[in-house]
Amino acid sequence: MHIVIVGTGAVGTILGSRLQATGQCHITAVCRSNFEAVRHNGLKINSDHFGNSVFKPDYVASSVEDATNQDYSFDYIIVCTKALPALTNTVDLIRPLVSSNTSIMLIQNGIGIEDDCIQHFPQNPVFPAVIYIMCTQLSPGEIECSGQVRLIIGANRLKGVVDDHELRFERDQKHCERIRELFNIGGIDAVLTDQIQGYRWLKIVWNASFNPVSVVSGGCDTVEMLSQPETADLLCTIQHELWATGEAVTGQPLPLIPGTRSPEELCRATLKLPAYKPSMLHDYLNKRPMEHEVILKNPLELARKYKIHIPHVETVYALLVLLEKKNNRSNSNKDNA
Amino acid sequence: MHIVIVGTGAVGTILGSRLQATGQCHITAVCRSNFEAVRHNGLKINSDHFGNSVFKPDYVASSVEDATNQDYSFDYIIVCTKALPALTNTVDLIRPLVSSNTSIMLIQNGIGIEDDCIQHFPQNPVFPAVIYIMCTQLSPGEIECSGQVRLIIGANRLKGVVDDHELRFERDQKHCERIRELFNIGGIDAVLTDQIQGYRWLKIVWNASFNPVSVVSGGCDTVEMLSQPETADLLCTIQHELWATGEAVTGQPLPLIPGTRSPEELCRATLKLPAYKPSMLHDYLNKRPMEHEVILKNPLELARKYKIHIPHVETVYALLVLLEKKNNRSNSNKDNA
Repeated sequence: MHIVIVGTGAVGTILGSRLQATGQCHITAVCRSNFEAVRHNGLKINSDHFGNSVFKPDYVASSVEDATNQDYSFDYIIVCTKALPALTNTVDLIRPLVSSNTSIMLIQNGIGIEDDCIQHFPQNPVFPAVIYIMCTQLSPGEIECSGQVRLIIGANRLKGVVDDHELRFERDQKHCERIRELFNIGGIDAVLTDQIQGYRWLKIVWNASFNPVSVVSGGCDTVEMLSQPETADLLCTIQHELWATGEAVTGQPLPLIPGTRSPEELCRATLKLPAYKPSMLHDYLNKRPMEHEVILKNPLELARKYKIHIPHVETVYALLVLLEKKNNRSNSNKDNA
Repeated sequence: MHIVIVGTGAVGTILGSRLQATGQCHITAVCRSNFEAVRHNGLKINSDHFGNSVFKPDYVASSVEDATNQDYSFDYIIVCTKALPALTNTVDLIRPLVSSNTSIMLIQNGIGIEDDCIQHFPQNPVFPAVIYIMCTQLSPGEIECSGQVRLIIGANRLKGVVDDHELRFERDQKHCERIRELFNIGGIDAVLTDQIQGYRWLKIVWNASFNPVSVVSGGCDTVEMLSQPETADLLCTIQHELWATGEAVTGQPLPLIPGTRSPEELCRATLKLPAYKPSMLHDYLNKRPMEHEVILKNPLELARKYKIHIPHVETVYALLVLLEKKNNRSNSNKDNA
């Protein structure tokens, strides 16, 4: 089985290494900023669950084009890049890698990230997944991962979008099942679901509340945010708005996972964990682009389409884009100084 | 006529100097941070409308207690301090100055600033005013003022609050008229209104939108805020929410002033003016307390009471208090360092 990981950061490394460990997968890793380090030394993994090891992809590619310089086609593309549609178009990015037998798995944050791929690669299974993982790339090629990884995989139901939706769903679900099994063999807690969009929305409930509020509240971590009563209420209210949007868009209740069965429970569960700075705050502080298009703008547009009023989300989004603009300007001022 | 100005910053200086210029008023100025400078040199005024001059109050007091060390009682107390109920209680502050013939005029931002005084000094006329003025204290005792000053004065209608509301209104309105006339003689464009609360709310529409958004958007001026479409929409939406609250609370349409007859018109008018950093942003950047209790919290509580949903105001308020907490902590960390 030939698998290409596009974006071999912390998440891509853990997934690629576990698939390689099955002995059944040939892994091509597309690296960008860490290419030189990975080519020479591989990816050093420090993990309490999977142990310490060095992952050496079967082929380390410096770009997507480079990845195609091999004499086989890919069974799976696993996309682990940030979702920044304004900067990188995933369709254009992966196009050289797609052949008739390729399945495309998108492990990215946000809502609507797979729509373009579904449209542009109608003959290929395309499915987003939901990953729960605590990992980070400490330096190029050096990955730290704590705890187990949970992966939720499932095909989209394209009812109303394509005529042969039931056939498509069954076909895609088989490809989901095949990769799920491989992840299981590799030691990852992966499950198959028939309501993947519900899980995507459940993750958005957390991501689209804690992420932007951490930035627009001046750089607060989860504990700081939840310790101020007005802001704790705000987080809950934002989550209720997204929960309702998710249920309207998917047409069914969101999946109930222990500890996250309501916004109140989700906030309580978050407060029990160590103080945490959400990824959007890290991006903001490092003047990197934030994933607000897929995490906030797409949900906002869907809410509008489904006539659901989500004013609290609307407010933090409007503040966030202005903050980013100011942040970028101060960045370019610095560059000019 | 004996008048005491409590809080002789930029606004207090301009008002006190114009009242003294009538030749009919003896002015006591309560100064705090600028006391030494004012006692020695008076207050230097640089004004394109009123000309350049030095205002020497008839008595410069270092405190309210000091102000009472004179052999007369005050006809008017004019309060020009910031409205920070959590730090300074206006009732306790001015109590030593109040005698049976004293009228109390509150020139402060926000909603509900006069409620405590009305309750504690039931025998005294108490009225808030609305001031439109562009002035600043450049250094202790040095005041700059551009353009004319517009002052709107009027008694509260306490219908439903006190039994003799009509008598009270007429009595208070006479005291308003007397001071209005003095301001006019002193060259200030002062007018009497019978719907002062409508004018207060109209000012809140501007203050409670541009002020907090400038802080929670990372320190933007008016032009930056209005140049980002999502944020311009947010400002308008916040203003619509406050406009509706003001109309519900006052029970009548807000007064229509040219250039501010709707939130859209107010934003367009603001965009035509030079870029401006609202006062709350200055306070935030200088780690001074912000007037969010009277500008946001009181309107929010009234909205709740009148069952008006103002989610966008709610959101910026929740973010603002967390930002302030973080700002204060970074301040005290600095003090400890």
